Amino acid sequence: MPKSKEIETRWWGWGDIKKTYPVEERPSYIPYLEERLGIKVEQVRTPDPSLDHVELRAPRLSDDVMVELEQIVGSSNLSTEKRDRVHHAIGKSYRDVVRARSGNIPNPPDAVVYPGSEEEVKAILEVAENRGIAVIPYCGGSSVVGGVEPLDRDGLIGSISVDLRRMDKVLMVDAESLRARFEAGIWGPELEDELKKRGLYLGHAPESFLFSGLGGWIASRSAGRQSTGYGKIEEMVESVRLVTPRGIIDTLDVPASATGPDFKEIICGSEGTLGIITQATVRVRPLPEVFDYRGLLFKEFEGGVQSVKEMMQSGNIPETIRISDPEESSLALRVRKPSSKPAKEKALQAALRVLDLLGYSFHRGSYAVLGCEGRKVEVAERVKKITAICVRNGAVPLGRSAGMEWYHGRYDHPYFRDIMMGWGVLVDTLETATTWDNIMKLYRAVRGSIIEALADYDSKAIVTCHLSHSYPTGSSLYFIFMGKQAKGKEIEQWEHLKRKAGDAIIENGGTISHHHGVGYEHAPWFEKEYGPEALKALKALKETLDPKGIMNPGKLGL
Amino acid sequence: MPKSKEIETRWWGWGDIKKTYPVEERPSYIPYLEERLGIKVEQVRTPDPSLDHVELRAPRLSDDVMVELEQIVGSSNLSTEKRDRVHHAIGKSYRDVVRARSGNIPNPPDAVVYPGSEEEVKAILEVAENRGIAVIPYCGGSSVVGGVEPLDRDGLIGSISVDLRRMDKVLMVDAESLRARFEAGIWGPELEDELKKRGLYLGHAPESFLFSGLGGWIASRSAGRQSTGYGKIEEMVESVRLVTPRGIIDTLDVPASATGPDFKEIICGSEGTLGIITQATVRVRPLPEVFDYRGLLFKEFEGGVQSVKEMMQSGNIPETIRISDPEESSLALRVRKPSSKPAKEKALQAALRVLDLLGYSFHRGSYAVLGCEGRKVEVAERVKKITAICVRNGAVPLGRSAGMEWYHGRYDHPYFRDIMMGWGVLVDTLETATTWDNIMKLYRAVRGSIIEALADYDSKAIVTCHLSHSYPTGSSLYFIFMGKQAKGKEIEQWEHLKRKAGDAIIENGGTISHHHGVGYEHAPWFEKEYGPEALKALKALKETLDPKGIMNPGKLGL
Repeated sequence: MPKSKEIETRWWGWGDIKKTYPVEERPSYIPYLEERLGIKVEQVRTPDPSLDHVELRAPRLSDDVMVELEQIVGSSNLSTEKRDRVHHAIGKSYRDVVRARSGNIPNPPDAVVYPGSEEEVKAILEVAENRGIAVIPYCGGSSVVGGVEPLDRDGLIGSISVDLRRMDKVLMVDAESLRARFEAGIWGPELEDELKKRGLYLGHAPESFLFSGLGGWIASRSAGRQSTGYGKIEEMVESVRLVTPRGIIDTLDVPASATGPDFKEIICGSEGTLGIITQATVRVRPLPEVFDYRGLLFKEFEGGVQSVKEMMQSGNIPETIRISDPEESSLALRVRKPSSKPAKEKALQAALRVLDLLGYSFHRGSYAVLGCEGRKVEVAERVKKITAICVRNGAVPLGRSAGMEWYHGRYDHPYFRDIMMGWGVLVDTLETATTWDNIMKLYRAVRGSIIEALADYDSKAIVTCHLSHSYPTGSSLYFIFMGKQAKGKEIEQWEHLKRKAGDAIIENGGTISHHHGVGYEHAPWFEKEYGPEALKALKALKETLDPKGIMNPGKLGL
Repeated sequence: MPKSKEIETRWWGWGDIKKTYPVEERPSYIPYLEERLGIKVEQVRTPDPSLDHVELRAPRLSDDVMVELEQIVGSSNLSTEKRDRVHHAIGKSYRDVVRARSGNIPNPPDAVVYPGSEEEVKAILEVAENRGIAVIPYCGGSSVVGGVEPLDRDGLIGSISVDLRRMDKVLMVDAESLRARFEAGIWGPELEDELKKRGLYLGHAPESFLFSGLGGWIASRSAGRQSTGYGKIEEMVESVRLVTPRGIIDTLDVPASATGPDFKEIICGSEGTLGIITQATVRVRPLPEVFDYRGLLFKEFEGGVQSVKEMMQSGNIPETIRISDPEESSLALRVRKPSSKPAKEKALQAALRVLDLLGYSFHRGSYAVLGCEGRKVEVAERVKKITAICVRNGAVPLGRSAGMEWYHGRYDHPYFRDIMMGWGVLVDTLETATTWDNIMKLYRAVRGSIIEALADYDSKAIVTCHLSHSYPTGSSLYFIFMGKQAKGKEIEQWEHLKRKAGDAIIENGGTISHHHGVGYEHAPWFEKEYGPEALKALKALKETLDPKGIMNPGKLGL
C-alpha cells in the first residue's frame, strides 16, 4: 500500500485520481434524481478539466526571496510548479470545485514550501515576516470552508503555502498513559497505522480521513465519524505546539489544569491565523477488538432523535449514531448498490415490503447507523442496551450488513459529489449544532431556507439531514442538499443559498459550524456568533503573535 | 434551613462561625500529632481574633465616587463597614489565615458593592474605569491562592470588591436538554436545591461547596469531589457570559462548535482578570437515585494507583475515586471518630488486626474511597466492575460505612485546619496533575520537597497525598502536609515551603494547579507553565477588554 500522501490526487475535486464513485452500480439513482430535480442527466462523465486551460497568475516572489526559502528547505522542497500551486490554491468545497472545473483559480500561492522540521518552519516564518509574505499552513488541504486558499492582505507582497507533509514523525508513544505525540503533518491512515502497530487507536475519522491530517484536524476543530463516543479532536488533544511569528507556544502535557484560560483551546480552531501547529500529543485508546456497525429503521425521524437523546443522557453512548431524516433515508435506499445475487436482492426487497406494511419505511421513516467499538463483551452489552432504547422508540433492527454497507462506503461520498457536479447538479453540505429543545426547530428552519434558496434560482430541491455527532445537551445537524445548477451563475446561486442557510442557522440558535470550521466561507457569520468584543480580543491576541498579519489572512475574519 | 449566604462566617478562617471540628471525639489524633511533629498541643482553642485588634487602612475612595456607586446599587448594597471590608480582604489560604489571626489585613477593599443585576455590574465597571478603581469580583471568597485579595496597581486610586451574592437567580431550566442557566452569584447548596426541585443535579461539589458558587467555580476552573465521573467545572459549562469594561461577551449555548478559538475556555480560568462572570448555562443530569460510597483498602499504594488507571482506561469510571498514600491512610485511621458503641468499636479493631495479618494495613497500604452516583441498577453494575478491578490489584472492600463516613465528613476538613493552626501547626494543601507515566516520580519529588522545606525550618513533617481527580491519561495529586510553625516567621516559613514545592512541581512535569487556580500565590510559576509568548498574547487580549487594567490586578500575573 502506498502512503496516503503518495497517492496522486485531483486538484479540481476530491481524492485519489484513480478512484471514482460507481454510479452505474446504482441503477435506481439517476432516474430518481432526474425526477426529483427535473433535470436530464447525461450518463457520461464530463471530461476532467485540464491544467493547460488554467491561467495562473505569475509567481510574485522575487529571486531574493526564493533563494532565501531555498536555503531553508532545499531546492527539492520548494516549488513554483503550476501543478503544485494549483493543488494548494483551493480546498474541496463546492465553491472550490465549481471554480476549479472552470479553470478559475484566482488566488494561487506564489510558491509551495515543504519544510522538514520545526527549525525550518521557524525560518520560513522569519523570511515571510521580514519580506511581508502571507503564510498559509497546509496539511491535507481538505477544507470545505475556504480555509487553505491564500488571500491577499494590504502590505503583503505575495503568499506561500506551507505544506507540512514531510513533518509526519511519531515523536512519542506512551502506552501507559494512552498518549501519543506526532508531528502535525501526519495524515489519518499513517497515524492510525503507527498506533495500530502498538495496539493503539485514536479513533478520529472525518470523511476526509484518507486525505487529511493531525494539524488540519486541530486547526479546524474537526469531528470524526466516532465523535459521539470519542469526542471531537479538541477533546483528544492533550497538548499542542504552535510556532508563531513571535515564538513557540507549547501547552503543558497534563490531563487537566486550572492555570488560567486554556491556551490549548485557543490553538484548536485557530485555522492557521496564529501560527503553524507543528506537534501535538493526542489521547489514544486500546485498539478495539470489534467494530460493530448496524442498521436500524425508525418509524419516524422524531423517534430516532428521541433515541439519541436518551442514549446520550443515560450514558449508553455509542461511538457512532447517525439518524437520517425521511428524505435522507429514502435517498439511502435509492443510492444503494443492489446485491449481485438476484435471489438475495429479491428476498431483501420482499423484506422491505413487509417492513413497509408494518409501518417501517425508508421513505417515511428514519434510517439509522449505530456503531460501537471496543472490547467484544463490552460492545455486546452496550449494543444491547442502545438497541433497546431504539426499539422502545419505534425502531426495527436491520442487522449488521446494513451497518457495514455504510461503514465500507464512509469515505466515498465526496467522489459522488464530484460526479454529480458534472451533471449540472448543485450538491453541497452544511452542518450546525444546537440543544435538544431547539433541534427540530433548527432542522425545519435550515431545511426550509435551503429549499427556498434553490427555488429562488428556479430549482427543485432534495434536502436531507442527519444527526451524526451527539451530546447529552444536544446534537449536530448535517444537511446534504441538491438542486439544479444555475448555468453560468453557479457561484452566485451558491452564495445566495449559503447566505440564506447561514442566516437561518444564526437566527435559529445554531452554530455556523459544528466541525467544518470558519475559514473564508463562514467568516460573515463568525463575528455574529462570536460577538464583537470577543473578536476584538481575539484580534489583539493575534496581533501579539503575528504583528505583521502574515498568518492565513482573511480567515476567521482576522 | 437558612440560605447558605445567611450563615455568619469567619473572617479569619473557614466557614460557619458556629461550627468547628470536634477534635475531642478523636482521642488518638493529638498524641499522634504530638509524637510525629515533636510538638506539645495545648488542648485549648486559641481565642478567636477580634476585629477590634485589626487596624484597617482608611477607605481611599472620595465621597464623589461613593455617591456614584450608591446611585447604582442603593445605600444598603454599598458598604465600608470594617466587617465587610475585612471579610472581602482575603481568601481562605493558609497564608490568609495566618495573617488574619495576627490581625494583619494589608489590602482591604475600600468598599464592598453588592450589585443586584447585570445592569448594575456594568454601571459599576463604568464608574471603576472612569475613576481608576480596581475591581475584584467576589463570589464565595473561598480562594486558597489569593484570588480575591485586592492588590494595587499603579494608576489606580483604590479597590472595590464586587460581591455577586444578590445575583443568584435561576434563569432557565431546560430538562429536555439537561441544561440550566443561573446568575453567577448562586452558591452550591442553593444551586443544587433549585435543581433538585426539578429532579436534576449538577454534581459539582468542591470542598468549598457550602460557601462557594458558580461564578467563582468557573473563574478558577474548580473541580468537585465527583469530577472523575462528571468532569471539572469547565466541562460542565455549556455557555458563559462575561461583563468586561468594554462590553459583554456571551458564548453561544450549543453543545459543541468549530467556530474558532473557544472563548468559553478563555473565560474559564480568567479569575476575574477579564471581567465579571454574570451568568452561565451548565450541563446538568437527572438527580441520582443512589449515592453509593464505599471504602477499600489496598495492600500497596501502587496497587491503588494502578486500579484507578485501569478504571479510567477501561471506561469503568466512578464519580469519585480517592486513593490515599500510606501516610494519609494511616492518618485517616488516627483521625477517625470511634464508634459510640464499645462492642462495635471492639469488633472493628479486631477486624483491623485480622486485615493487618492478611497484609492489608492502613499504615502500610492505601485507603480508598469509591463513589458512584446514578440509577440504582446501573450503579450496582458499575460498582461491581470497579471493585473487581481493585480486588485484582490487591484491595479488600471495607463496605459502605467506611465510605459514608468519609462522605459525611467531606466538607469538615477546613475547620480542622483552622484548629490545628491554633496549635502552632503549619497545615496546608497543594495539588497538581500529571500523566500516568510520571505520577510516582512527581509524587516522590513533591513529597520530598515538602519534607525538605519543613526540615529547613527545623520541623518534622507529615506529608500525605491522594489521587482524587483522574483521567484516562493521568491524575491529579493532592497533598496535605503538617509541620511545626516557625513562631514569628510563619509566612516566611510557608513561602519557603511553597517555593520549594512549586519548583518541584514544575521541574517534574506537573501543573502548578489542577483545580485551585493561580491567583496571587501561584503567579510565580504561572508564566513558566504558560510560557512567555502565550502570556504576552493573554495580556494583549486582556488589554482589549480591560484597557485600564482595573480587573483583579496582580492575578494570573496580569
